[in-house]
Amino acid sequence: MVFADRLTFIESSAIRDLFKLLKSPDIISFAGGFPDIEVFDVDGIKQACDKALNLSAAHALQYGATEGFMPLREEIVKIMSEKGVSDLLPENLIITTGSQQAIDLVGKVLLNPVDNILLEGPTFIAAIQSLKMYGGQIHTINIDDQGLDLGHLEILLETLNPKLMYVIPTFSNPSGVTTSLERRKKLLQLAVKYRCFLLEDDPYSGLYFGTPPPPSLLALSASVEGSRDWVAYCGSLSKIVSPGLRIGWLIAPPTILEKAALCKQFSDAHASTLAQTVAYHYLQSNRLNHAVINMRRVYAERAQLMQGLLNVWMGEKIQFFIPQGGMFIWGQLVKTLPKQDTSAWSKQAVKDLVAFVPGAPFYAENPDRSTFRLSFASTSVDKIELGMERLSRSLDTWLAS
Amino acid sequence: MVFADRLTFIESSAIRDLFKLLKSPDIISFAGGFPDIEVFDVDGIKQACDKALNLSAAHALQYGATEGFMPLREEIVKIMSEKGVSDLLPENLIITTGSQQAIDLVGKVLLNPVDNILLEGPTFIAAIQSLKMYGGQIHTINIDDQGLDLGHLEILLETLNPKLMYVIPTFSNPSGVTTSLERRKKLLQLAVKYRCFLLEDDPYSGLYFGTPPPPSLLALSASVEGSRDWVAYCGSLSKIVSPGLRIGWLIAPPTILEKAALCKQFSDAHASTLAQTVAYHYLQSNRLNHAVINMRRVYAERAQLMQGLLNVWMGEKIQFFIPQGGMFIWGQLVKTLPKQDTSAWSKQAVKDLVAFVPGAPFYAENPDRSTFRLSFASTSVDKIELGMERLSRSLDTWLAS
Repeated sequence: MVFADRLTFIESSAIRDLFKLLKSPDIISFAGGFPDIEVFDVDGIKQACDKALNLSAAHALQYGATEGFMPLREEIVKIMSEKGVSDLLPENLIITTGSQQAIDLVGKVLLNPVDNILLEGPTFIAAIQSLKMYGGQIHTINIDDQGLDLGHLEILLETLNPKLMYVIPTFSNPSGVTTSLERRKKLLQLAVKYRCFLLEDDPYSGLYFGTPPPPSLLALSASVEGSRDWVAYCGSLSKIVSPGLRIGWLIAPPTILEKAALCKQFSDAHASTLAQTVAYHYLQSNRLNHAVINMRRVYAERAQLMQGLLNVWMGEKIQFFIPQGGMFIWGQLVKTLPKQDTSAWSKQAVKDLVAFVPGAPFYAENPDRSTFRLSFASTSVDKIELGMERLSRSLDTWLAS
Repeated sequence: MVFADRLTFIESSAIRDLFKLLKSPDIISFAGGFPDIEVFDVDGIKQACDKALNLSAAHALQYGATEGFMPLREEIVKIMSEKGVSDLLPENLIITTGSQQAIDLVGKVLLNPVDNILLEGPTFIAAIQSLKMYGGQIHTINIDDQGLDLGHLEILLETLNPKLMYVIPTFSNPSGVTTSLERRKKLLQLAVKYRCFLLEDDPYSGLYFGTPPPPSLLALSASVEGSRDWVAYCGSLSKIVSPGLRIGWLIAPPTILEKAALCKQFSDAHASTLAQTVAYHYLQSNRLNHAVINMRRVYAERAQLMQGLLNVWMGEKIQFFIPQGGMFIWGQLVKTLPKQDTSAWSKQAVKDLVAFVPGAPFYAENPDRSTFRLSFASTSVDKIELGMERLSRSLDTWLAS
């Protein structure tokens, strides 16, 4: 059987493949991108589920509109309003099967094989693969500790005339980096100037540790002339309620949103109405803010502990970005070390019963093989302590081997 | 904004657009393709939901494998075994977000814009649109009351060298027609002979009224030499448990299934684990067979009533296939009538507070505009009586206008 050309450059996520190695319960894993089920508001979700089937069974169990369950779309408008997007109507968003589908739909709507696409280097692996299936050449924008390198971006915009930029400006996966307010505004101006469509992926912004992050690109687009027409936004309940619902949303200019709904109609008809109705009742119950405050506290504690121990145990061998929120610490071996490929280190680490993800797969091009990602979200404090000790030992063993 | 080329020939489903006209509760609608929530086993689903969150919350609320929740895949194997597919392993299927996604994934995996595709004329609208987005030219296979016209099919296979055939051999949507056992075997032989991949969509086979339908193409492929490598199968819980779960499955040869899982990974990561866990507990409870027996009885009664009344009220003006199961009656204006476009009739019908779907959108090419589809599944017996009276009156009014 000859497969479609679009599959030529697609690979299974290296992270998912790594997981197959992590079956042993003795391994302490910092590899996953999973939130911690221990911080989910399981009681609240149970109550929402009861309401969905006792009060709304006719909606929860029947086919629904491709665009999503209207009362849920109204709840999402409230969430977005709390995030500073004040002029949104329920008709300006559609409910997607996780925000992964929102990314997929934007690719399906916009990209032809001749188009150029810009992504952060590094960025979310599944976005790379999803967009690759629709588009042509992918190019990466450099980042630093303030987020996107706009000088590099402008060179790419000028030389490549890209159709789409995909960015995670807040607590990015994998880098944890947040693009500064000043750069956000400039980024919107560049999108307008170079007529490049900007897809903002924003799953982590609720999970801040100290002060809230800058407003989203979507929120800021209200005050940057002409930019609203060039911005789409993916949101998600996966990190703040539960990924099991697979409830995300896409906000986009009307013509694009209409085409995305059409593509969704023929992709999966609609997101699970059971999950949508549960999500609606959960959001209606006003428990979300309390649950998210708890998540922030738990993740902040874990992040701080991990940073401290990384410095204590490996401070002279690695450097890393200090995240202000989200779920990840992005590290790099210092240049003076004799070995620079974290993929080899990760194999030693699994032998020492600790796991992380080497950084190369997060780059759509020119991978920096000295990088790696640690998730602090789903590991308890005592396991982080033991895990960091093992990680340090595995680094020494690998460097000496 | 310039959209992707793949959207050029895609339109919103005519059925969904029609629904926007049907907001008035006074309209009796035979237009939908919805099962009747009154025949769902709501109590059983509620119990399954309780079990999902009380016994399996760690699975129901967390990220899951792209291929699906293994215990659910094992339950689907049991369903397929009862349908005569005895040699299936859980690894031979993936769980999809409704069977719509299974169709979409096969298109994504196999089709390039140069490929030819064969569909029944008429067939499921969302399959036409979904496959169009990936492939090239779509051609339709004629049908009669025994199903696919294999003489016509062989001409198409010979002249077009198509890559993919999509068929609904059992109680087809919209035609209600079932392809006979003899033709099924011949169809499998033709797939092998012409090396044309066969996608069997099978959402309705459980809903038979008298004797069970012939075995699926997948089941028969065990006994038609070489054919197993050329068959994929889409199944669904939407018509027998609840469409709100959005739980379907794709069975395909290993190389294709692997690519489909890869495409799914980057389309929506996985089907809702909440919905999958609920489906698992529901199937475990052994309530499905009882629920389906009830559905058969209810739908059979409605189908028989509708057929009788169509004959009584409109017997000289229309003809129709007599369905042995499923949800639909497919009719046609007799050739001697002065008007032949049911789209015009459908507008008069809405004025007379009754709705059906004109047949043209179900054809990927050369639409027969004298056709129409009536769903008997979601309308109670008394409303069917009143609705048939209105339908007859609207036909007379339209013909006289």
